[in-house]
Amino acid sequence: MLMKTAAQSLAEQLAALFAQRIRDRLLAPGARLPSVRLCAQQQGVSPSTVVGAYDQLLAQGLVEARKNRGFYVRDLPSVAVGSAQDAIESGANGVANLMLTVPQRYAPLNATALIRGMFKGVSNKPQPGMGVLPKEWLQSTFLATAVRRSCSVEALNAFSLQYGEPAGDSGLRRALSTKLAGLSIQAAPEQIITTVGATNALDVVSRTLLRAGDYVMVEEPGWAIEFARLDSLGMRILPVPRRAEGPDLEVMARYCEAHKPKLFVSVSVFHNPTGFCLSPSSAYRILQLANQHDFHIVEDDTYSHFAPEHATRLCALDGLQRTIYVGGFAKILAPNWRVGYMAAPKDLAERLLDTKLLSTLTTPALLEKALAWCIDQGQLRRHAERIRTQLDGARARSVKLALAHGCTFASDPVGLFGWVETGVDTDALSQRMLDEGYLLAPGALFHAQRTPSSLMRINFACTQEAQFWKTFARLRDEQLGKATSVAK
Amino acid sequence: MLMKTAAQSLAEQLAALFAQRIRDRLLAPGARLPSVRLCAQQQGVSPSTVVGAYDQLLAQGLVEARKNRGFYVRDLPSVAVGSAQDAIESGANGVANLMLTVPQRYAPLNATALIRGMFKGVSNKPQPGMGVLPKEWLQSTFLATAVRRSCSVEALNAFSLQYGEPAGDSGLRRALSTKLAGLSIQAAPEQIITTVGATNALDVVSRTLLRAGDYVMVEEPGWAIEFARLDSLGMRILPVPRRAEGPDLEVMARYCEAHKPKLFVSVSVFHNPTGFCLSPSSAYRILQLANQHDFHIVEDDTYSHFAPEHATRLCALDGLQRTIYVGGFAKILAPNWRVGYMAAPKDLAERLLDTKLLSTLTTPALLEKALAWCIDQGQLRRHAERIRTQLDGARARSVKLALAHGCTFASDPVGLFGWVETGVDTDALSQRMLDEGYLLAPGALFHAQRTPSSLMRINFACTQEAQFWKTFARLRDEQLGKATSVAK
Repeated sequence: MLMKTAAQSLAEQLAALFAQRIRDRLLAPGARLPSVRLCAQQQGVSPSTVVGAYDQLLAQGLVEARKNRGFYVRDLPSVAVGSAQDAIESGANGVANLMLTVPQRYAPLNATALIRGMFKGVSNKPQPGMGVLPKEWLQSTFLATAVRRSCSVEALNAFSLQYGEPAGDSGLRRALSTKLAGLSIQAAPEQIITTVGATNALDVVSRTLLRAGDYVMVEEPGWAIEFARLDSLGMRILPVPRRAEGPDLEVMARYCEAHKPKLFVSVSVFHNPTGFCLSPSSAYRILQLANQHDFHIVEDDTYSHFAPEHATRLCALDGLQRTIYVGGFAKILAPNWRVGYMAAPKDLAERLLDTKLLSTLTTPALLEKALAWCIDQGQLRRHAERIRTQLDGARARSVKLALAHGCTFASDPVGLFGWVETGVDTDALSQRMLDEGYLLAPGALFHAQRTPSSLMRINFACTQEAQFWKTFARLRDEQLGKATSVAK
Repeated sequence: MLMKTAAQSLAEQLAALFAQRIRDRLLAPGARLPSVRLCAQQQGVSPSTVVGAYDQLLAQGLVEARKNRGFYVRDLPSVAVGSAQDAIESGANGVANLMLTVPQRYAPLNATALIRGMFKGVSNKPQPGMGVLPKEWLQSTFLATAVRRSCSVEALNAFSLQYGEPAGDSGLRRALSTKLAGLSIQAAPEQIITTVGATNALDVVSRTLLRAGDYVMVEEPGWAIEFARLDSLGMRILPVPRRAEGPDLEVMARYCEAHKPKLFVSVSVFHNPTGFCLSPSSAYRILQLANQHDFHIVEDDTYSHFAPEHATRLCALDGLQRTIYVGGFAKILAPNWRVGYMAAPKDLAERLLDTKLLSTLTTPALLEKALAWCIDQGQLRRHAERIRTQLDGARARSVKLALAHGCTFASDPVGLFGWVETGVDTDALSQRMLDEGYLLAPGALFHAQRTPSSLMRINFACTQEAQFWKTFARLRDEQLGKATSVAK
C-alpha cells in the first residue's frame, strides 16, 4: 500500500513502482498500463496522483501515450540488432491451413520476465509462479558434505588447474549411466555429456541439430524459455497441442508433411505445465513418425525426480537411436549448481560435444564430483523420496484450497505443477497479484503465440496456504466485477 | 615406438594408433594419411605392415582410398544436419575484390581438434601447443581456502538452493568492477555479467548482437575456436589481417563499405597467437570506424593477466559505448572453474543477460564467490606477479632454444605465446610430433580458411627444455629432406 512520506509523494512512489516492474520485465514492452481510473481504484489513490505518476513514466521514456488508448510500456531502445525472426519471416511459406501456419513473432522478452521475477524475490511470501521448490524444502546437510570432499588443496588442485574432461567428470557420467539404467535407458558413460543445467543441454542440442530457419516441433502449452531460445536461434516453431496421452499426433503428422521439421522437443513425464504423462501407445506412434519423417526427438526429463521410474519415456523405447535425453537437478537438489546432462546416440554425442566446446569449453568439475557423490551414496534417492512425500501433502492441500476458491484443474493435479482454470485473464490478474507480493505464471506464457489465457500454472509447494487463495479470489472477483463496471 | 607383442601385430598397433587419432580429431576429416613409404620410414616398420594397417582402417570405415592419391580420413557420418554454412553461402554476394571475398567453408572440426588434444593428455611431456599454463605453474593453496570459505552447510545452502542472481554473484561483480577500474575501464557492477568462462561470454555476445548471415570481422591470425563458433552460428566471417600496431585498418574500412559488418572481435593486448599489442592511434581509428559504420566491438582480454595495466584497450578509450569487454581466469588461476565475464553498455547488458538466461539460466555461485575472495584479498594479483616472473624466465630460455634450433619469431616474443617460423608445413610436422608425444599448434589453425602455414604457436611455459627442440629439429629436418627425396 502506498503511503505519503516526506521524501516521496504518492505519485513518485507509484511511478517508481511501475518503473521497477518495467525494468524487471514484469511489465513487458507493449503491455498496457491500467487505465487511470482503474489504477486509482486498485492503489487507493486519487486519479490525479495516477496522472502524475504516468507523466513521470512518460518523462523517463519508459512508457508512451497512444491517443485514446492509454499508456503502453515502450520497447527497449531499438539497437541495430533484432532477433533472428526476420530471417524466419523472409523465408516463411504461405500455408493455407490455419493449423499449419507458422506462428507470428511473440515478444520473447516475456519469457525471461517470469524467470527474472523468480530471481528477484517479489516478496517473502511463497510464490505460486515459481518453477522450483522453495529453498526451505531443499535444505540438507549432505550437499555441503559432498562439496567438502573435493575441497582439500590436493583434491582441488587435481581438477581445477586444467580444463578438465570435455564430456564432463567421468565419475558423474558413470553415476548418470547407472541412474539412467534405472529408467530403462541404456547409455554408456561415453554417450553422456554434462552441461550447465538442463537449459544449457537443450541449447546445445538445438544448436547441434538445427540451423537458422529450420522447423522444430514443440508442445503447446510448453515452457516459454524453450520457445524464446528457439526463436532467438532463428528456428521456426511448430506448436503441437499437448493432450493427456501425449502430443496431438495428427497435427504432428501434418507438420511433418508440410514442413519437414528436424526436431521435436518433448516433456514426456509430468509435462510442464499440464503434468500430463505420455502413454505407451503415443510414444510408439511418435517414434514411428520420427523414423518415417527423419527427425530427432529431445526428451526433456527435468521432472523425472517426482515421477515413478516406470513412467513411459521415448528414450527408453527407442534406445537412444533418434532420441536425446536431457536431465538436470535444479528441481530436486540445488538450482544454483547448474549441473545438467544429455545422453545421445554415440555419433551424435561427438557432435554435441563439439558444440559444448564452442559454447562453454568445459564445465566445472567441483560440483559435478559433488553431485556424483550424492547419487552414488544414495543421498539423492532418499532426498527425492522425502520431497515426493512432502509434495504429495502440499498438493492435496493446494488442490482443496483451489477448488474451494472456485478454481478447476485443466488437467489432473500431479507432480510439481497444477494447471489451473481461473475464469479471468491471468495476464491482467498477474499484474494485480504483484501489487500484493505474489508472482503468478499466467497461461499466456506457455503459448508460443502468447494467446490470452484464463489458465495459470501453480507450484503446489507454494500454494498450500489459505492466504494466497483469499487474495487470489478477491482480486479475481474484482476483475470479474470490474470487467462489467469499467467496460463502456 | 611400435613393438611386436603376442596380443597385437604391428599392423594392428599401427591401425589402432591412427584410429585413436582420428577419433580424437587429431587427424581431422579430409586429412591425408602419410604415404605408405613415408609411414613405414617414420614408424620403423615394413611397407607391408603399413598396408595392413591402412586396410584395417579402411575396413573400420575410418579412412577412404582415393585413386592414385592415397588414404584420407573420412568425414563423420553425414547426419541430416550440417553447419549453418549453407545459409551463409546461399546468401553470399559475389564480391570482385579478392581481399573482400568471403572465405569459403573451412573444416570447423579442426578447431576442436586442438582443444580435444589439450584435454586428452597426449603424453606426460610439456605440450608446446597448449593454450594454458601447465598445472604445476598454477598450483596454490589459496584456491582451496577460497572455496572452503563458502562450504559450511549454512553458506552453501544460502546460495545453492535458488537459481541465484541472473547477472552473477554480486560480490564478484563488485570485485570485477574495481579490477576493471585499474585498467581504466569504468564499469558499474550492473554492467557486468558473469559467464561460463570467457568462451561463453564471447558466445553470448555473438548470439545477442548477430543473427545468422550477419557479417563479423575477426583478426587473422586469430583463435580457431572463435572462427568455428561464429561459423556454427551461421555468421559470415571477414578476416582482418592483424599487424603489430593493430588490425589492418584499410581492410577494415573496405569491409565496412562492402558488407556493413555488425561486430569486430578483437584481442588488443597480447593478441593470440602473435602477442601483438594494440597501439593508441590504431585504437582511436578503430573506434572512429565503429562510430562511422555503426558496429560493435568485443574486446577479448583473456591475456590481460600477463600484461601491464596501462596497455591500450579499446574499452578504456571508448568508455563502454560501442565496446564490450570480455575477461576470464583460465590463463592465470583455474581453467576448470570456468568463470568469465563481460562488461557492456547498460542497455546492452540487459540484452546480454537475456541471452545468458536462455543459454545457461544462471552460473554457479560457489566458484564465483571463491574467485571474488581471491581478487579482494589480493591473492590473484600476487599470484599473477609470481607467474609473470616465472614466465619471463621460461620465455627467455624458450627463445634462446628456438633460435638455436633454426627458428625465427614472426613477432616479438612477449606474453604467453610465441609465433614461430619453422620453415616447413606445420600441419604435417604436427602429425609427426604426435608420434613423439608432442602436441603442436600449427599455424593453419589460426587462419579462418586454414591456409597451409609454416608457422606454429608455442606456449613459452612448455618449450623451455632442450628435449623438445631437439625432437622438433630432427623431424623438421627429416621433413625438409623428405620433401625432396619423396617427391617424384
